[in-house]
Amino acid sequence: MPHIDLPEGIPGIRSAMAFRPETAEPLCLLAETLLRDDNSLSRGERELIASYVSSLNECRYCATSHGAYAAAQLDGGAGLVEQVKRDLDTAPVDEKLRALLRIAAKVQQGGRSVTTGDVEAARAEGATDVEIHDTVLIAAAFCMFNRYVDGLATWTPDDPAVYDGMAERMLEHGYLAIVRK
Amino acid sequence: MPHIDLPEGIPGIRSAMAFRPETAEPLCLLAETLLRDDNSLSRGERELIASYVSSLNECRYCATSHGAYAAAQLDGGAGLVEQVKRDLDTAPVDEKLRALLRIAAKVQQGGRSVTTGDVEAARAEGATDVEIHDTVLIAAAFCMFNRYVDGLATWTPDDPAVYDGMAERMLEHGYLAIVRK
Repeated sequence: MPHIDLPEGIPGIRSAMAFRPETAEPLCLLAETLLRDDNSLSRGERELIASYVSSLNECRYCATSHGAYAAAQLDGGAGLVEQVKRDLDTAPVDEKLRALLRIAAKVQQGGRSVTTGDVEAARAEGATDVEIHDTVLIAAAFCMFNRYVDGLATWTPDDPAVYDGMAERMLEHGYLAIVRK
Repeated sequence: MPHIDLPEGIPGIRSAMAFRPETAEPLCLLAETLLRDDNSLSRGERELIASYVSSLNECRYCATSHGAYAAAQLDGGAGLVEQVKRDLDTAPVDEKLRALLRIAAKVQQGGRSVTTGDVEAARAEGATDVEIHDTVLIAAAFCMFNRYVDGLATWTPDDPAVYDGMAERMLEHGYLAIVRK
């Protein structure tokens, strides 16, 4: 049961966005810019960072939905997403992405946990300043989205088909379609 | 020293926003909507929630700047902001705001920490669903902003005059003036 009177039958963050469209607009614009706009990190890589952080925050709705968006856009599919969550050190991702995911995990703990060494390790694998910036902001943003979703106790569907359907629509129409119908 | 090559002489989140204006736009729009648009919670009360959460996250830049914005818009001024941070249980705020600040502190720990009892306590003091929603989202958003500021190791000025100057300009022009000059 959600903590406040959210519209029924709408999953996760979407119910909070339907309740409060004024704040939904900047939130969707942020997600679209960070996760889908042109970037040297692929859309799949950025969704993987989002799902990984959500998993560390134990936010099942965000971890599952963004996991589905990542899986649909990465060669390794859902198996790769699961491997990253199970053991980042041995997951078959390239070393730059592994270093960025380590930075994301530090951000999840708290901004001050990120060290010069973490950033140097990513740079040594070829990460640019924009990629490091975007990784920090994606990880920080999901520390917000996860708390928003779970802090209101929104509905987390159990049926995997719900997430597959959301992935199909999100890949085609993007995040802004949530608020601009 | 910031972790990436941010423009010099610009404090805190503003240096990251100058580095990446594409993401600055939705972030400033979110801050303006949450903290300054029409609301049954006053601007001072919302800035107090923002500064309190930033203090719990030990983000000195955000705690100090939003503390200055809160102090400038609350009858109790800087003394009240400090009392809330030192001991919420005894600080001279009304009971509705105290209950909302307790929810914000739970969100800072993690979304799943918020209980039905926390929400019922706020409602018993007259908090509306929108006020509870906005408190959760303000607290969640500052878990993002704080991580963004400290995860990039942006510059935190020591001089209080810097924050007073920012407060004066922010009260007059709002958050969108940061990106729409």
